[in-house]
Amino acid sequence: MIKIAILGFGTVGSGVLEVLEKNAAGVARRAGEEVRVKYILDIRDFSDHPRAELFVNNIDPILEDPEVSTVVETIGGTKPAYYYVKSALEAGKNVCTSNKELVATHGAELLALAVKKKVCFLFEASVGGGTPLITPLHQCLAANVIDSVCGIVNGTTNFMLTRMEQDGMSFDEALKVAQGLGYAETIDPSADVDGIDACRKISILASMIFGSEVHPENVPTRGIREITIDDIYFTKKMKLAVKLIAYAHRCEKGGFACGVEPMVLPAEQMMAGVSDVYNAVLVKGDMLGDVMFYGKGAGKLPTASAVVADVVDAAKLGSSIHDSLFWRASAPLKGKITDEGSYTYYVRVNNQDLGTLKEDLGGVVLSLQNKNQTAVLTLPMTEKELRKKKEKLEKDGIQVATALRMLEV
Amino acid sequence: MIKIAILGFGTVGSGVLEVLEKNAAGVARRAGEEVRVKYILDIRDFSDHPRAELFVNNIDPILEDPEVSTVVETIGGTKPAYYYVKSALEAGKNVCTSNKELVATHGAELLALAVKKKVCFLFEASVGGGTPLITPLHQCLAANVIDSVCGIVNGTTNFMLTRMEQDGMSFDEALKVAQGLGYAETIDPSADVDGIDACRKISILASMIFGSEVHPENVPTRGIREITIDDIYFTKKMKLAVKLIAYAHRCEKGGFACGVEPMVLPAEQMMAGVSDVYNAVLVKGDMLGDVMFYGKGAGKLPTASAVVADVVDAAKLGSSIHDSLFWRASAPLKGKITDEGSYTYYVRVNNQDLGTLKEDLGGVVLSLQNKNQTAVLTLPMTEKELRKKKEKLEKDGIQVATALRMLEV
Repeated sequence: MIKIAILGFGTVGSGVLEVLEKNAAGVARRAGEEVRVKYILDIRDFSDHPRAELFVNNIDPILEDPEVSTVVETIGGTKPAYYYVKSALEAGKNVCTSNKELVATHGAELLALAVKKKVCFLFEASVGGGTPLITPLHQCLAANVIDSVCGIVNGTTNFMLTRMEQDGMSFDEALKVAQGLGYAETIDPSADVDGIDACRKISILASMIFGSEVHPENVPTRGIREITIDDIYFTKKMKLAVKLIAYAHRCEKGGFACGVEPMVLPAEQMMAGVSDVYNAVLVKGDMLGDVMFYGKGAGKLPTASAVVADVVDAAKLGSSIHDSLFWRASAPLKGKITDEGSYTYYVRVNNQDLGTLKEDLGGVVLSLQNKNQTAVLTLPMTEKELRKKKEKLEKDGIQVATALRMLEV
Repeated sequence: MIKIAILGFGTVGSGVLEVLEKNAAGVARRAGEEVRVKYILDIRDFSDHPRAELFVNNIDPILEDPEVSTVVETIGGTKPAYYYVKSALEAGKNVCTSNKELVATHGAELLALAVKKKVCFLFEASVGGGTPLITPLHQCLAANVIDSVCGIVNGTTNFMLTRMEQDGMSFDEALKVAQGLGYAETIDPSADVDGIDACRKISILASMIFGSEVHPENVPTRGIREITIDDIYFTKKMKLAVKLIAYAHRCEKGGFACGVEPMVLPAEQMMAGVSDVYNAVLVKGDMLGDVMFYGKGAGKLPTASAVVADVVDAAKLGSSIHDSLFWRASAPLKGKITDEGSYTYYVRVNNQDLGTLKEDLGGVVLSLQNKNQTAVLTLPMTEKELRKKKEKLEKDGIQVATALRMLEV
């Protein structure tokens, strides 16, 4: 029998108990033995809970109990999660977590500790919720060099952009609806709308595919606050969709690029059809070509079911899983990672002087005008070139309201 | 070091050698040791091949060599593949195959033999080519009861339907293009266009999710020969796409349904956006909700890379993988599996008598007429009801040209 402890009995933690109770037989068959929850750590009062006898408010009995082979961490944040997880690994226990902040911030250290202690540190649920992504990436694509991952990894902002596109809502209106449905935080929604959540997730995926720690603070990150109904109007006319895209890819000249920003993409692309709270990640392997993983990126039971699958994997695979699921620690860079690739940009200006716009941008491939505004698609250029052209436009009295890269897949 | 033998040096077999040579370092790191090809079995003459020393034309040295731990079977068909695979498992070797016919026909027996001999019988490449599907289904979704899988599992017919829809080609024209590109067999394309390939693949997925052998001969299977440019015309007007869908799901009243047939689906669904040779499979888990796996369903290197990932898994997981990847043998049913669910149907008739059509079908939700033809969407009904209504229509002198179920996802 596999005995586990759940740290944090919030949405995901209580989901783990529910999944284990509902699908006990299937989980036991696949794990090769029964999986039972022996402790639940939560400082809140659960004395009325049907499983009240499982609750403890201190991690020590869990760490000291040799019967507990695996600890599930679903507290979120890094404090006290980091201390608990580190202590559990040091005590020789597997850890399975849904905590992307923890993995993005301390993943390299915790992976190394897991290898040293010959246990597992697994985090399938940290990206894509219940959608399998981490495991397929390192295990099923084991015979590939992964050249690129990119996609929609934040359901809340995708829901908001879908409302803006389909229902004509403004950013503020879409945010209110998302908050009303519990998708976005009411007090401070910035983790979602400013791309912080997506930045943590792409830092994890980038670290995995490059094999070396990518620090969230080095990942250039822009959220969707800048997207207005004017952009939705113009991009729809241009048969483009606006999506918050997280990306990481190897660069032609060596090195890699990684970032989070709103991008435009042709409406006929599969990724453009990903709406509401769904996530989708496109992976390019050198042997495989393109594969895409699509599903709800959050939710209590989906996320919990991914954590439970990790518990099973930890029992079956043991520490050897880290031959493929691993990245080395590295010092943070100074400043942000830059992408020197050339891309087409969607540019919107509050002006109808198309002649100057064309000249300053060095030509455009498509232009549209509406209500004293102009939107164009540029020829391919680097970020640096775009910055220079923006300065030139400003000198000529034209303010760039929005500039969005075209996602090339 | 892991020493393997490749049986059959055709497209996929030669791809396995290529993948192992190109990505040797990554594969070795993930497997925990080097993977080297020791034998290649092929009866053709490869004496000019750079690796000529590896070739043998008889399986005995492979079976007798204790250094060979894993055999890759990429011959295709069941004869002699079945004999070779059975012999390899009996000799205590893992087998990794891309051969869907073999797995669909003899999977239950070969899985049982693998368990008995404490080795692995793996077949990720048999469905979806390089796209991870089998492994995520049984491993990542270990905490779910899978209620349904459905999707596009044959790239050739999807390519043909895409050409018919986007370029206005007829079935015959699309088939010729597919043959010219090597997607369909020139002499007898029926494995693709009559749904036989899709039937084998859904038999494998259905056996997996139900845990009990689903025999291909029991799976009702229709291909795309019946689809005409008239159907493409009407379905486009109705904002529907036509796709060859393979499905398997649990039924409300117990039991399960499974089949392959061309279906219509709303154009805004993700699955409708899957074009050309791409495959996509939608999986519904009871905890997880919907996830979709999307990628090219065939191709030398993608398929080979999935076989190599299985070689790595065999080395790392061993026979315990069959705690989750397994189905029991069962006797074939008499006749075909039936689906008693109620579905909306697209019905096209060579007649413009909408009154009789409506009456005989018991009402319609949408109708369109063009060139002495009528197409309608019906109210939900069972297959049995549809059959009766068709008979009634025939009595009234109206021939049903096409009837396609609406895919509900």
